[in-house]
Amino acid sequence: MDRTVLNTDLLLGSAITEENPFISTEETLHWLRKRNAATKVNVNKIPFREMKDWHLDEKQGALRHSSGRFFSISGINVKTNWGKVEEWEQPVIDQPEVGYLGIITKEINGILYFLLQAKIEPGNVNNVQLSPTLQATRSNYSQVHKGRKPLYLEYFQQVKRDQVILDQLQSEQGARFYKKRNRNMIIKADEDIPVEEDFIWLTLGQIKRLLCYDNVVNMDTRTVISAISFSGHLKPVSEMRVAAAGQIDYAMLESQINGDVALYKVDEIITWLTQLKCNFDLNVRPISLFDIKGWIIEEDVIRQENNLYFNVIAAQVEISNREVRSWHQPLVGPIEPGIIAFIHKRINGVSHFLVQAKLECGNFDILEMAPTVQCITGSYANSKDVPFLDYILNADSSQIRYDTLQSEEGGRFYREQNRNLIIEADDNMSEEVPDNYIWMTLHQMSIFLKFNNYLNIQARSLISTIQFLK
Amino acid sequence: MDRTVLNTDLLLGSAITEENPFISTEETLHWLRKRNAATKVNVNKIPFREMKDWHLDEKQGALRHSSGRFFSISGINVKTNWGKVEEWEQPVIDQPEVGYLGIITKEINGILYFLLQAKIEPGNVNNVQLSPTLQATRSNYSQVHKGRKPLYLEYFQQVKRDQVILDQLQSEQGARFYKKRNRNMIIKADEDIPVEEDFIWLTLGQIKRLLCYDNVVNMDTRTVISAISFSGHLKPVSEMRVAAAGQIDYAMLESQINGDVALYKVDEIITWLTQLKCNFDLNVRPISLFDIKGWIIEEDVIRQENNLYFNVIAAQVEISNREVRSWHQPLVGPIEPGIIAFIHKRINGVSHFLVQAKLECGNFDILEMAPTVQCITGSYANSKDVPFLDYILNADSSQIRYDTLQSEEGGRFYREQNRNLIIEADDNMSEEVPDNYIWMTLHQMSIFLKFNNYLNIQARSLISTIQFLK
Repeated sequence: MDRTVLNTDLLLGSAITEENPFISTEETLHWLRKRNAATKVNVNKIPFREMKDWHLDEKQGALRHSSGRFFSISGINVKTNWGKVEEWEQPVIDQPEVGYLGIITKEINGILYFLLQAKIEPGNVNNVQLSPTLQATRSNYSQVHKGRKPLYLEYFQQVKRDQVILDQLQSEQGARFYKKRNRNMIIKADEDIPVEEDFIWLTLGQIKRLLCYDNVVNMDTRTVISAISFSGHLKPVSEMRVAAAGQIDYAMLESQINGDVALYKVDEIITWLTQLKCNFDLNVRPISLFDIKGWIIEEDVIRQENNLYFNVIAAQVEISNREVRSWHQPLVGPIEPGIIAFIHKRINGVSHFLVQAKLECGNFDILEMAPTVQCITGSYANSKDVPFLDYILNADSSQIRYDTLQSEEGGRFYREQNRNLIIEADDNMSEEVPDNYIWMTLHQMSIFLKFNNYLNIQARSLISTIQFLK
Repeated sequence: MDRTVLNTDLLLGSAITEENPFISTEETLHWLRKRNAATKVNVNKIPFREMKDWHLDEKQGALRHSSGRFFSISGINVKTNWGKVEEWEQPVIDQPEVGYLGIITKEINGILYFLLQAKIEPGNVNNVQLSPTLQATRSNYSQVHKGRKPLYLEYFQQVKRDQVILDQLQSEQGARFYKKRNRNMIIKADEDIPVEEDFIWLTLGQIKRLLCYDNVVNMDTRTVISAISFSGHLKPVSEMRVAAAGQIDYAMLESQINGDVALYKVDEIITWLTQLKCNFDLNVRPISLFDIKGWIIEEDVIRQENNLYFNVIAAQVEISNREVRSWHQPLVGPIEPGIIAFIHKRINGVSHFLVQAKLECGNFDILEMAPTVQCITGSYANSKDVPFLDYILNADSSQIRYDTLQSEEGGRFYREQNRNLIIEADDNMSEEVPDNYIWMTLHQMSIFLKFNNYLNIQARSLISTIQFLK
């Protein structure tokens, strides 16, 4: 049979399997807790001028590394006819390098396992989270910092075409990064893979179960697994090893594997998005970090003058577990937590998700498809201004399918958490929605996800949490 | 039955129909020749300083219109690890506005007709070519020039969702424009459409037949019709009105309508392109027109110091047919003609096209899918440096499926023509190709074409010429 179909069957099989002879889900949580307790992470705010290798460079107009590599914090001026604010300026993370976010998988006794790492990041709320097998910027793997080569890098660099399950460029946070993208990869190894310390094999079903806990699976893992498509799946679900037989949510499974049941055709969704992209302008001009209107550079923080949105700090990071490591780097911290939520509704017996076209200043192409609601909690006071926010905040507990705290990538973001929600619409909810919203099936979202820069990272984070098991 | 499927059947029906009770293909050619003879177009080179409403603006670093609208000629600095030249500077056409390229279609007695216009453009080789129903920049339709509103504009602005056959953002020439895109639309009118002077109804089969003549169908029409997909077609071809029954090229038709016969899966093609996009960098920095290294601004021309590539002239345009109109504008002229060519090969009984991933400085996203060969004739001397150029230039006449001269859009380009070729590979040609080439079916190209910025305008121009009738 065709390799791609075989892979799809394996992926779906793994998604509905929670049994794992190597490590159970409970053991994984226990193991992470132990790793967490054995690790100490200190992040101390220091003055920018005391940072080693980083400095506020007035000539370049940026906070940057002395090598010119890694990333920098610079400024942008934004003009747009989207929303209520026509022009603003803000700092952005500028990181033109494309990094690897890669997971190695392997079929063992008919089940596909994913190799994840318990990884420490300075900005993590809880020190250690499950990250992809490989998480490396070009500066990392070209060894600018003269550290050791990232583990497992060579498997991705030397991958054969027929071992690739997916290999896509996907966007990062458009409100913080300037057009940043990462290479999201899943490869399937034929050879034996050595399991290094802090790495474990998990089924996709286990990862999805672990996503029901706060801050266990990191953002990089979430974006990579969000790209897994089960379309083209052939084998009847009943024939597969189902850990929890009879527990399958068929409306959700149909939404993912059946391409013919959607309310709108893919072409109609393209038409919808084209019209919006033509109606809205996004003009972004790089400016000096030192010229950003409304922002203040203090000795140890770059902040908005009224303490809104986010800030940039100079961090002295000290991590101790088996060895002690210490370094300096900037971190971006939120002022308040946010909320991201999808509403889904059964239409023609199949789950449809309410997708929003959203403009963010760092978007590669004006608008990306975002969750139904994506905002900071500060917006709650004016919840009438944010469509569907009231609906989500007032949902009955029976409608809440998913509700956890998940955090942004701890290598750049300091303890930034978002509440992730998936809400099932009640029967009264109308299929009529505002112009920049549209109902899509999971299958359709995974088609757009394949192509660059269609679904934003918040939408992908939520998609990664969707399970077919109840 | 489903509206989209009905439209696809109508489109394919129109594509294989050359009968037209309103105007035959012969009459269309005769009508165009008459229009051409009745029209006089004078383009006189004048000094930049004599241009009305346009001026070389040292402060803005650009040749621009006094309104700040329409387009401007500015400079870019390009750095890349693609190809042999690591850094260069050049002028570009900067036109951030998205324009409409739109065709109205109508079903009349079961056949779909396309409303085209015999349109005069100053840069056209032969004055008049067949253009889309609507060809308008935002400056046009917001009436910056205080002219009359473009004909048929309201049909596109007020179109209902179920009248849209396609609505996509597509790229323009990446070596001349900086990230320029146009909105390519085909709509299907339900109401009666008045046929204004210089407009005619043609079947898609007629347009494709007219594409066998040099410079009859303009670039804008070509890019719009290239986006027509026949995928999802249901009705057996034999049941349709076939003007030339028995003349169908089934290998080509299968290539378009059958999604399951390709050498590579769409996911494998995405993997191929992701890898290339990650390996190649394109850094483009806007610079002043007056600072471009290696280019000279003279009184009446902006040119490369060794007279290579292209130049920019100040044109006094005078057009006389029924009335006399005259204006000034910059035009971009080529130094030498170019060649664009696709090689196709029957693989598993289905035509596959050899697609090149090509970097051009104005590309929106580093690389786009281009024809097998896309170069200027100056490259012939070193044809060994251009893969497949020798193969194309030495093809046996029995392999040449298509060979005409087609021109770039005459509103910006001064008499710029490219030889358009489609060559059928002989049995000896290997399926093994260099890393940045891949074999794709027409069906696959039309999938990528739906999403923004995957197929470049040269590839689309060639795709538009492909017929299913021999």
